Amino acid sequence: MAVRGAELTAEKLLQATHELMLEHGGVEPSVSQLCERAGVQVAMVSYCFGGKTQLLQALLDRAVEDVVAQLGRLGAADLPPEEKLRRHVAGVIRNFVRYPYAQRLSQTLAAGDPAVARTAGQFARPLLQFHAELLADGVRAGAFRPMDPTLFFFSLVGACEFLFAAQSWLDEPIDERLIERFTEHTTELVLRGISPSSRSQPDARARGG
Amino acid sequence: MAVRGAELTAEKLLQATHELMLEHGGVEPSVSQLCERAGVQVAMVSYCFGGKTQLLQALLDRAVEDVVAQLGRLGAADLPPEEKLRRHVAGVIRNFVRYPYAQRLSQTLAAGDPAVARTAGQFARPLLQFHAELLADGVRAGAFRPMDPTLFFFSLVGACEFLFAAQSWLDEPIDERLIERFTEHTTELVLRGISPSSRSQPDARARGG
Repeated sequence: MAVRGAELTAEKLLQATHELMLEHGGVEPSVSQLCERAGVQVAMVSYCFGGKTQLLQALLDRAVEDVVAQLGRLGAADLPPEEKLRRHVAGVIRNFVRYPYAQRLSQTLAAGDPAVARTAGQFARPLLQFHAELLADGVRAGAFRPMDPTLFFFSLVGACEFLFAAQSWLDEPIDERLIERFTEHTTELVLRGISPSSRSQPDARARGG
Repeated sequence: MAVRGAELTAEKLLQATHELMLEHGGVEPSVSQLCERAGVQVAMVSYCFGGKTQLLQALLDRAVEDVVAQLGRLGAADLPPEEKLRRHVAGVIRNFVRYPYAQRLSQTLAAGDPAVARTAGQFARPLLQFHAELLADGVRAGAFRPMDPTLFFFSLVGACEFLFAAQSWLDEPIDERLIERFTEHTTELVLRGISPSSRSQPDARARGG
């Protein structure tokens, strides 16, 4: 098989896997399912990627590259911290629309083979770093209250992610309108939550959690 | 096999599955793995439950029963809405410590067989109802701003859940100290986020998401 042919076949397999993961709520398709969708021979998974795990890893790598590029652009933009956070929340939600399987797939790959746990770092590290810098900027500007960036990372991503992770719990389809409402809702919740004003913190802490 | 013996074996299998799911980050153990841990014959899974799917369903049912009982107690407690929400957030986090596999398992079972999608309703419905009532109480009391209870449900559960779902992204172990910090962090974020005071909403909306 010519190099060009192998590349096309690899692309078809990635696209078929992407589609099937979207359709099946993040459940991994079997090799035969994804080859049938791609319209290629079953042997092509091994030929192009070395195996199904490596194919899934390649799919995840593509998503990671896209997300990292987005963060780089937003981080470099000349915008106030609140506006960056607003756009970031919208971006995180949009990425879960685009790659709803990414987080779970990353966990599965990491659990199945510690050697591929690198994906965890690929995904989480740029996000964590972005959050840490944005938080520091916002605190300096008086727009945010200080908080642990790692915990904030989990709160923010979780608040965006769960609608997609648990969409079978939803009575309506995830369409454009719902995404818009959810983005507005989440942005407002996060921006209020991180705001230095309002609630009297000593009172909140005195009562314990 | 006597009924009593079958009950004990079933309990051993449930406990072994619970432990293995905890240890393996929610990845389902194989039948042979869980029977080895339980110290029972492989045939016992079919004998006691009818199959592995039904065993997993039974494991989830136990978690659901516990969570529903907790919500019932908190809902009936004579406490102001803010304090109920504070305790609820702590309770949701505590349940992810106890049953970190529950949400994902519920998705897997629902995706694998639409007939067992009933679990989705079992878990989500009491939580959604609890949130809707608590939000309405809080808005009446002037403690919360109005918001969509379904979207709030996904935000709140997601903000609590993701630390557990993505714990391979964490550089430190999830221990008591981290859970305490995370509970305080999440409670504060959610209570500020839902608070009617502070941020000027028209400004936030005008700029778009």
